[in-house]
Parts: sequence; C-alpha cells; structure tokens
Amino acid sequence: MATERIERIARVRERVAAAKRRGLRVGCVPTMGALHAAHTAMFDRAREECDLVVATIFVNPLQFDRPDDLRSYPRDIESDLIVCEHHGVDVAFVPAVAEMYPRPPAMTVEIEGLADGLCGASRPGHFRGVATVVLKLLNSVQPDIAYFGEKDYQQLAIVRRLAEDACLPVQIASVETVREPDGLALSSRNVLLGRAERASAPAIFHALQRARDAVESGQQDAGKVVAVARQVLDEEPLLKLDYLEIVDPDTLEPVRSIHGPVRIAAAASYGSTRLIDNIHAAPLKAR
Amino acid sequence: MATERIERIARVRERVAAAKRRGLRVGCVPTMGALHAAHTAMFDRAREECDLVVATIFVNPLQFDRPDDLRSYPRDIESDLIVCEHHGVDVAFVPAVAEMYPRPPAMTVEIEGLADGLCGASRPGHFRGVATVVLKLLNSVQPDIAYFGEKDYQQLAIVRRLAEDACLPVQIASVETVREPDGLALSSRNVLLGRAERASAPAIFHALQRARDAVESGQQDAGKVVAVARQVLDEEPLLKLDYLEIVDPDTLEPVRSIHGPVRIAAAASYGSTRLIDNIHAAPLKAR
Repeated sequence: MATERIERIARVRERVAAAKRRGLRVGCVPTMGALHAAHTAMFDRAREECDLVVATIFVNPLQFDRPDDLRSYPRDIESDLIVCEHHGVDVAFVPAVAEMYPRPPAMTVEIEGLADGLCGASRPGHFRGVATVVLKLLNSVQPDIAYFGEKDYQQLAIVRRLAEDACLPVQIASVETVREPDGLALSSRNVLLGRAERASAPAIFHALQRARDAVESGQQDAGKVVAVARQVLDEEPLLKLDYLEIVDPDTLEPVRSIHGPVRIAAAASYGSTRLIDNIHAAPLKAR
Repeated sequence: MATERIERIARVRERVAAAKRRGLRVGCVPTMGALHAAHTAMFDRAREECDLVVATIFVNPLQFDRPDDLRSYPRDIESDLIVCEHHGVDVAFVPAVAEMYPRPPAMTVEIEGLADGLCGASRPGHFRGVATVVLKLLNSVQPDIAYFGEKDYQQLAIVRRLAEDACLPVQIASVETVREPDGLALSSRNVLLGRAERASAPAIFHALQRARDAVESGQQDAGKVVAVARQVLDEEPLLKLDYLEIVDPDTLEPVRSIHGPVRIAAAASYGSTRLIDNIHAAPLKAR
C-alpha cells in the first residue's frame, strides 16, 4: 500500500480516529525527515507492534537555536516518502509550518531540570521547542505508542517526563541506537565529516564503552569513570569534547557515586559538526 | 442512572474510550467541587449537547498561591455527587492528589501574556497551575467538548489558547455567567459576604453594565469608560477595587481606544473575600 501523505491536522485526526474505532493500534514515529536507517528501525518496530503506522515529518523551527542551522537542515520530502513506503508507513503527516503554528504560540512548555544540562547547556531554548512540538504532534496524531530513538537520550527523557506530567494518553517507546559497523551512531550529520574525521568519530562510542566497562567492573567514582573515557578521546586530535557526563537515567542529574543504573552521555565536535552518543551502564551486581 | 464515581485516570480513560468506540459524544466539565447553580448550568448544557457527561472534581493544589486558601477551600464530595446525579452527570472523575501528581511535576506550562495581567498580577503562579491541571485533566478524560464558565474569563481565555497552541483534540465551550436576581455573579465565595457586603456586591455587575452602555453608546476612550464604571463603585464604601480593565477578548491585552468587541473585567474585595466579574461590550456599529 502506498504511504498516504497528509498535511492537515484535522485530516490525520480523522484517519487515526477511524482506525481506532475499528480497534486498531496506532503507532507514531516523529521525525524531522532526512530519513536514514535509524528512522527506518523505528518504522520497522512500529510496523511490528502496530496496525496503523504514522510517521510525522516536520522540521520544527521552534527547536533551532541558530537560524542558519534551520535554513541548512536537509529537506528531501520526495525521497523521505519513498523511504516511508518501503518500510510500510501507512501515513506520512507532513504539516506546513503555518499548520503547526498558525500564529506564534503563547504556550511554552518547560521540563524543569531535565533540559538544563548536557546538550541543553549549549542549546538554549532547544528542548523547550522540542517539548512544545512533541506535545502538538502527539495531540494531533493521538497514537497509542510513540517511538523515540535512544541516541537523543536527553530528548527521550524529556518526552517521557512530558508524557507523564501532562497525562498524555500515549506510551513512549524507546528504540536502541543504530550504529555503523565501527560503532559510530547513525546521524544525518555523519555525511558532513571529512575522511579523517569519519575515521576518528567511532572513538566517541569506544570511550563510552570503556566507561561502561569501568562501571560494570565496580568503579563507583564517576570522576574516575569519566577519566578512563577521556583517555580514549585524548588520543583523537581532531575531536573537541563538549561534555562527557554520567547522569541518572530518569532525572538526568549528575551522578557522583555509582550504585545503580546510569546513563553515560557525550557530545563532541569535528569542526562545526557536532555529534552525540550515549550508553547504559550499571554495576554488574545491581543489574 | 446513578453517577459513577471514578478515581483512577486509567479507568476514566477506559470508560470514555468505550463510549467513543460506540460513536458517543463526550462532554467534560472540570470543577473544584463545592458545586452550585453555575456548575449545574454547565452540566445541563453538556447534558443537552453530549451523550456522556463527565464532571471532574479536583481541588488542584498547584493553582493555590496561599496554603491557607487551599486548606480552607470548601470540600463536600458527598453532596457534590448528589448534585451531579440530579443533573444527569454520568461520571464524576474524582482523583486524589497522588493520582494527578504522583511526584511533583517537572513540566510547567505557561501561556505568555495572557496570565500576567488582571487576576494574574495579584496571584503569582495561579494560571500556570490552572494551565497545567487543565492539560492533565483534558488528557486524562479526552472529551470532545470541555465546558468553562465565562465568569472566570481570564481562565477561559488561557484554556482556549492552551487548547489551540497544544493542538488539544477538544472543543472549548464557554458558558454564560449565572447571576443572582440582583445581578451578582454566582460564586462559592458569596456565602462569605456579610449582610451589608452582600447588599453592596451587585454594584460590581452594575458598574460593568454602565461601562458596557458607554461603549455601546460610542465612547471609544477606554479611560473614560473606566471612569464611568468607577463612579458606581466609588459609592460602595465596603468595596475595595482591585482592578477594572478593558481588554482584548482574545489576547487580554489592555485596550486604550475601543473600535471593536472588548471584555470589561473587574475584581474587588470585601474584607478578605475577593469577587470577580466581567462583561462583553462592543460599539453598536461594530457588532
């Protein structure tokens, strides 16, 4: 079946309501387009678990802190629709900016604490924009399950908390990070890396793995775990580390002494290309 | 049919989802209990327009700026349930505080501009608490139509904007203010007035009417319209005026020169009892 392209909120609502009246389970994968294998992994998962799969494709101006970043963000809706079709997406919801924001929103949604650290520190307003558009998209589509990737872990934690605090009638499902064979997390920004940068970039994941190994081996001092990971990154002269932190998986608060599951998250730049990645870790006895 | 009392979000969702699957139209009237004729006017309206009527009864701690006000807020759930029953309410959703806030919410919802003036100026955080709980309640119940009284006009304007900006899948219906025969707007606070205060209190509505008459007669200078209304209130020595303002009905921004529909809103105190009221006005030619 061809993917149906829908541009209006009213129409996608009708389509989903009709499916629900027939007792069908509706899954939604919010994206900003420029679809790659990490998106299709979410489509495939939604296809497995749901009867109607809706992908949303919307480059949300509200979450860009830099106008040039918004302008240069890759858009190729025709090839995105082909990707949707190949992965069994039933509906692509592709609203225009004027459909999502007929006037500048007076509402702001903030998720206290969760948006301040990690990537939030260097991208002011970014997660406020993310929370706002996710609220709007989920209220527009009204899926039973919405899928978010673990690669954007801070976004995932914020969306989970938003869904909980706003009593959104949706289950938030997380999908594991998809990686290149050498470990680099998939991202539409990877193509911007030069050859030497691309060769160096898997170091981010290797550093996270080294940190995880230290945690699993019983190292409880977060400072020492971070030091172990930094050793790996120090060997990469092209890489500029933004942060490497060990945080609570739910609240994202920094963890100093590790006694249970944590998330280890990192951001690093090659020139103007910023990459992020993260990994789960827990002391073996606490698992 | 007896009103069914439901305390769990999951249960009210099930009940509403089952009704929707049968093609029924669901109306919701959010209240803080202490039900009186202004609430029952909303129940009656919902009963006329909907197949399943849900009243929510929840005293929301988040919207009280003073702990003593929260403590002393009247609660009488048993008689509220009888009122619900007499007015054909199918479901009373009566969640405990721990059901609505299992932990303190990290999410805050602000409606920029709309919450700052009028009552917002003297009740810091009040409308943030209102917007948050309305978002939670509407997401919990998921009605087709939600009913709000015009007496709390600022709340109504904020809820409308919240629904628009968050793309809530609900129609916000406003219900006209219910008044005593002498014009005083119904409020659970009216019983707190002494005899002389009660005799004076209709002056608030009379002042608003006088202002409306001036607007209808073509007075475009908002300052002069306010002055006309103040004359009425100046004759009431027991009354302390908090504000009397002419605002845009949608944005609540102050209007200086009146060329179209406006809302005239007032708040006044008798001792510690604070009363509010408002009225629609428009130059006759602009109607």
